[in-house]
Amino acid sequence: MARQPTPDDRFAFGLWTVGWTGVDPFGAATRPALDPWEYAERLAEIGAWGISFHDNDVFPFDAAEAEKDERVARLRKAADRAGLVIEMVTTNTFTHPVFKDGGLTANDRSVRRFALRKVLRAVDLAAAAGATTFVMWGGREGGEYDGSKDVYAAMERYREGLDTVAGYIKSEGHDLRIALEPKPNEPRGDIFLPTVGHALALIAELEHGDIVGVNPETGHEQMAGLNYTHALGQALWSGKLFHIDLNGQRGLKYDQDLVFGHGDLMSAFFTVDLLENGFPGHPDAPRYTGARHFDYKPSRTEYMDGVWASAKACMATYLLLAEKARAFRADPRVREALEYAGVTELATPTLGAGETVHDLLAGDDGFDAGRAAERDLGFVRLQQLAVEHLIG
Amino acid sequence: MARQPTPDDRFAFGLWTVGWTGVDPFGAATRPALDPWEYAERLAEIGAWGISFHDNDVFPFDAAEAEKDERVARLRKAADRAGLVIEMVTTNTFTHPVFKDGGLTANDRSVRRFALRKVLRAVDLAAAAGATTFVMWGGREGGEYDGSKDVYAAMERYREGLDTVAGYIKSEGHDLRIALEPKPNEPRGDIFLPTVGHALALIAELEHGDIVGVNPETGHEQMAGLNYTHALGQALWSGKLFHIDLNGQRGLKYDQDLVFGHGDLMSAFFTVDLLENGFPGHPDAPRYTGARHFDYKPSRTEYMDGVWASAKACMATYLLLAEKARAFRADPRVREALEYAGVTELATPTLGAGETVHDLLAGDDGFDAGRAAERDLGFVRLQQLAVEHLIG
Amino acid sequence: MARQPTPDDRFAFGLWTVGWTGVDPFGAATRPALDPWEYAERLAEIGAWGISFHDNDVFPFDAAEAEKDERVARLRKAADRAGLVIEMVTTNTFTHPVFKDGGLTANDRSVRRFALRKVLRAVDLAAAAGATTFVMWGGREGGEYDGSKDVYAAMERYREGLDTVAGYIKSEGHDLRIALEPKPNEPRGDIFLPTVGHALALIAELEHGDIVGVNPETGHEQMAGLNYTHALGQALWSGKLFHIDLNGQRGLKYDQDLVFGHGDLMSAFFTVDLLENGFPGHPDAPRYTGARHFDYKPSRTEYMDGVWASAKACMATYLLLAEKARAFRADPRVREALEYAGVTELATPTLGAGETVHDLLAGDDGFDAGRAAERDLGFVRLQQLAVEHLIG
Amino acid sequence: MARQPTPDDRFAFGLWTVGWTGVDPFGAATRPALDPWEYAERLAEIGAWGISFHDNDVFPFDAAEAEKDERVARLRKAADRAGLVIEMVTTNTFTHPVFKDGGLTANDRSVRRFALRKVLRAVDLAAAAGATTFVMWGGREGGEYDGSKDVYAAMERYREGLDTVAGYIKSEGHDLRIALEPKPNEPRGDIFLPTVGHALALIAELEHGDIVGVNPETGHEQMAGLNYTHALGQALWSGKLFHIDLNGQRGLKYDQDLVFGHGDLMSAFFTVDLLENGFPGHPDAPRYTGARHFDYKPSRTEYMDGVWASAKACMATYLLLAEKARAFRADPRVREALEYAGVTELATPTLGAGETVHDLLAGDDGFDAGRAAERDLGFVRLQQLAVEHLIG
Repeated sequence: MARQPTPDDRFAFGLWTVGWTGVDPFGAATRPALDPWEYAERLAEIGAWGISFHDNDVFPFDAAEAEKDERVARLRKAADRAGLVIEMVTTNTFTHPVFKDGGLTANDRSVRRFALRKVLRAVDLAAAAGATTFVMWGGREGGEYDGSKDVYAAMERYREGLDTVAGYIKSEGHDLRIALEPKPNEPRGDIFLPTVGHALALIAELEHGDIVGVNPETGHEQMAGLNYTHALGQALWSGKLFHIDLNGQRGLKYDQDLVFGHGDLMSAFFTVDLLENGFPGHPDAPRYTGARHFDYKPSRTEYMDGVWASAKACMATYLLLAEKARAFRADPRVREALEYAGVTELATPTLGAGETVHDLLAGDDGFDAGRAAERDLGFVRLQQLAVEHLIG
Repeated sequence: MARQPTPDDRFAFGLWTVGWTGVDPFGAATRPALDPWEYAERLAEIGAWGISFHDNDVFPFDAAEAEKDERVARLRKAADRAGLVIEMVTTNTFTHPVFKDGGLTANDRSVRRFALRKVLRAVDLAAAAGATTFVMWGGREGGEYDGSKDVYAAMERYREGLDTVAGYIKSEGHDLRIALEPKPNEPRGDIFLPTVGHALALIAELEHGDIVGVNPETGHEQMAGLNYTHALGQALWSGKLFHIDLNGQRGLKYDQDLVFGHGDLMSAFFTVDLLENGFPGHPDAPRYTGARHFDYKPSRTEYMDGVWASAKACMATYLLLAEKARAFRADPRVREALEYAGVTELATPTLGAGETVHDLLAGDDGFDAGRAAERDLGFVRLQQLAVEHLIG
Repeated sequence: MARQPTPDDRFAFGLWTVGWTGVDPFGAATRPALDPWEYAERLAEIGAWGISFHDNDVFPFDAAEAEKDERVARLRKAADRAGLVIEMVTTNTFTHPVFKDGGLTANDRSVRRFALRKVLRAVDLAAAAGATTFVMWGGREGGEYDGSKDVYAAMERYREGLDTVAGYIKSEGHDLRIALEPKPNEPRGDIFLPTVGHALALIAELEHGDIVGVNPETGHEQMAGLNYTHALGQALWSGKLFHIDLNGQRGLKYDQDLVFGHGDLMSAFFTVDLLENGFPGHPDAPRYTGARHFDYKPSRTEYMDGVWASAKACMATYLLLAEKARAFRADPRVREALEYAGVTELATPTLGAGETVHDLLAGDDGFDAGRAAERDLGFVRLQQLAVEHLIG
Repeated sequence: MARQPTPDDRFAFGLWTVGWTGVDPFGAATRPALDPWEYAERLAEIGAWGISFHDNDVFPFDAAEAEKDERVARLRKAADRAGLVIEMVTTNTFTHPVFKDGGLTANDRSVRRFALRKVLRAVDLAAAAGATTFVMWGGREGGEYDGSKDVYAAMERYREGLDTVAGYIKSEGHDLRIALEPKPNEPRGDIFLPTVGHALALIAELEHGDIVGVNPETGHEQMAGLNYTHALGQALWSGKLFHIDLNGQRGLKYDQDLVFGHGDLMSAFFTVDLLENGFPGHPDAPRYTGARHFDYKPSRTEYMDGVWASAKACMATYLLLAEKARAFRADPRVREALEYAGVTELATPTLGAGETVHDLLAGDDGFDAGRAAERDLGFVRLQQLAVEHLIG
């Protein structure tokens, strides 16, 4: 059994996670919808530190200004009372049919303009709510047919949209950073910015890219068959890991949004190991210090008891893995195995201090390729140590 | 039947493609190996314009300098005689067991140093052979187990290696650009730089990134379930499409390296459409002007007749698709459908000339989301026009 | 352009296909819902021969008997007037939350009993409507977690349920055959009977398996990375291809239900070739003679025009492919290539007439493995002939 | 740390597993090859109970009879001395180029005859060696192109081949059962009998199917995105689980053959739970009692130390999981959760004893669908109990 989570653990949940009623492509809701503040209060009770939401998790798409204000105020009050931080806010640019071809990259310019306004207003909402991260998931940006999109134009419009939003954040003086959330597909056949790599590549071309980073989601990278921990690693290396979405996915299929750890458990272990303990060879490398944010869905087979059991399970699994990861790193056998495997050796530059490429080319270090090839790297042994720490 | 290819078509083949003898994880060679110049001569006969090779396609890993020189000279002479351009050269840092844990990011520093020297020497070889592109496929850079790699260190070493090579190219005054070739997995469980996006993101962090771009391979992107034409589009938008590897892949499985068009035919059509006709809404956007380079393998079931039949098939399919793509773009029904679908409309900036974000926020353009949502985008009709051009 | 479809083409559509309003996991409806008879009339106008439906495509889950009867009668009258055959009927055991854990294999016995009654009533409905096929898609039979299902019990209950339904069909004297529709996942994490193979294996254990076959869907097999045409082939060989669901899927992702041919076009060509021309080496092998039934969804980006354009596109693509497939088979170069490749040779038994295994072992036929290995099978050339027929 | 394995654990290894030298599609061997008896002796030392092999793991493809006999005798002697059981033997019909298009379903009849003879001789070898299982993996049976195979003919030839082999086993009085090993792809683009389901379906059509079952391999099912434990369950239900191949796979990619448990760890837990503890609701259901056979490859990065570390890791992980699975089943909270979830309820027939379908239809049990839909199934809680047993 894991210990009880506390606010110091910085666990956060999207209101839409526990609030998911179970509508899926083949089925109707299996649970009732509560008001957003009800979810917030309950999340605080079970040990969460923060919450996040889309604008339309709190008020309807076509709400009048007064209704918006009233509902947001009520949620903020509930959060305050419960000691919850509103750590992230995002915009829903995917549910309403007007967004059927996307928001910032919709072919229809009037839709793009409408989407951009909606995003900008959600930025103000985020800032007012005290959020420090503004996630942008472009779930409808993309297409099913190559002919339906001019990809160059789509990248231009994505850049324009992001720079407009980031520029606005700066000009308004908001203490807010944007985190792009990549996903390869679903609900579109091919989504633009399908992986963390593609998002980082776009960010590198922005004028205001300094306040734009990524929000990698476990299952989203895994839906492209990619390694989530590697994605976190490259994002940290680029200085762009602004937020995370933890959950579970079992292979290449529809977006499952399972409880964290109920997907690829070994991968979850190394994700937590990286988040809690950093890179093994780089004590001074950048670390992720933000929310441990869960973006999952309580399985549709569960009723309300299952909703809260699943939210608790996300935190409990994280805490158990964190404990295991600490013991793993502290184990002298693991330290020896990391060294044996050369994991720490990779931190040493390939060229020596002051060595030039011509110096390198001049000598051959007496290198014997045949003999070097016989080095036993011990990767399997190291992995087995991880397995034994995890389940031993 | 497609017309005969000519050098103007700029078709190029890796020597390792027609030269593949059919060794696979479960089987021995099914065909004999010829000398590299034999492949070159034959490729020229069937209409290729250029060739490419790894250093060890021409001489063995442990060849003495004299043997290397003699064999490279013989290949260059054969290419000259046949009127073939050596358009690209690359290094083999994956076959010899010394590279079992990678080259530039091997945990073992002595291996990294050896790999770097091997790459630098291949750069000189490339320059001497008149190649203008130097491809780097880091097929062994990666791991099977998250614990076996410090990803931060791996990115640092990748950067160091690439900047060393790019800096060397500059300092030597070589007229050569580097093209990184992403791949998600195989032969490693998770390869670093798994997609075009990840490679572009790394390039953005390089000191000498101006001469570093990407070499997207059809099947490699598709092995992550990603859209190859989208990858080409984002690479062009980033100004980084330096080279291409065309082939065929049938879904998420081992790297098949089929003939171009023998994988996802509809995707191949749109790839050729982009390469030949550019972005539909951006006549002035960057275009790819390099080699139409095939990186495929003649199926192992074929003997020598099948080797040449398959090489011809790559070119024939490309030429057929190019013809279809030209007719597609020229068809007034297609132009109408592109406009109806708003494909060209996406080229128009979302904000008006001189319009500020505050101007945008001030007005609502009289936008009616409900009505806008009823726009029929006609994407299916447009796709069906493509199908009917392709097979009609 | 393809010719107009006629009833002789036996094209059929599920009412839920053109009737899909566009609700997906992340979005609301983008199109209004019409009454079922309106879809039927329109389908007849564009050349369809038949229709199919789930009970709840025609009347709501909780409709009173009178309402059910009235709506079914109205649909039947509309079909009659339009000259449409109601070729297949099926039961919806997936939309209502009561089926959240499945129908015939729900853990909850009271749900199983309810589901079985619903299926049996739909059988009567099917028979009354003159349908000859009763499809059973167990989309909710399965689980997300291995612990949540006793797989042995699930197989037992599946068998019990199917034998109950098949026995009922026999005892009532209905002229109806059951066709099981496999799918690997979505909406459950792992669905029981994930592929055509698993369904055939279950059928082999039934008491009333003689009237139970399969209804393979293009995209469903492809969601497991499997070859749809191979699935049809094995089902035909087992004498169990009772119905088909044609559509399009682009790789391993959520169930796309694209227009037939808008997924893997080359695979669609060989599917049509098999359906129209049979097995190349077996003129007398069983042929599929049922409906060419489409189970697709008009993309959510389309409004009502796109609904009908997409339905027409399914039929047009099929007809175009059928024409190509006939020309492919008739081409003397193809016949020569099929023979060269040994495709027809595979129809010859391996043992000679009257040859025993001891005869076989006694002789070695003078077989030279080395020389035999040099046979050029010409598979690539044959495939290229297909490509050139398809797009030439 | 797991306890030491003993022969009572019935752990078995293919000689080709520890004997894999590391040749992969992009790389040469990284380890030397030992003689088969050397692997056998070492396997006994680390606690294995049995071994298995392909004919050509012991002698070369073109060995003379005397050489074959001598090498087999030497292996058997070594096995005897070490107390090892030769539990399974199989034929290599995939490495030699003559099998490039398959064995039993090769288009070339002379190849089929040769393959059949080779299989029959391996059957005699298996019987002589005391093996009780004869695995048949048709890794080269299949194709890359739909046009290259007449699937009906392929199924006919597969049936002919299997019935010939099974008939021979019977006529010779061998105490041997055949176990077919399915795989979706690699080394062919699409392999016939891609999954356990397809193999079971073929077996159902055999004349001598009573001695033919399946040998499901963890990674092979997972390469089609399928649930391995479900595959074992359906095979047990069909009475056909004759043998198993345990290993690890990380998603949809090339065949990784990782150490058991180094792939999907949670799935491995439930696999072991089924093997050790049977179906939760069916104490009397068939159980698997054969070898715990590992078909894995020591990672290519390892040298000889890693070979043995990895073999030990397979057994250690199994033993750890078995211990966890026993504790899981014994935990009263788990029992309560299984009941709460209805897992055991699924063992109860849907119809009552003596109840007819008309009885069922007559009553409605007072079933209230709306209320039944509100049942909280507690699947997530049950899964979390598994997680906490596994890593708690």
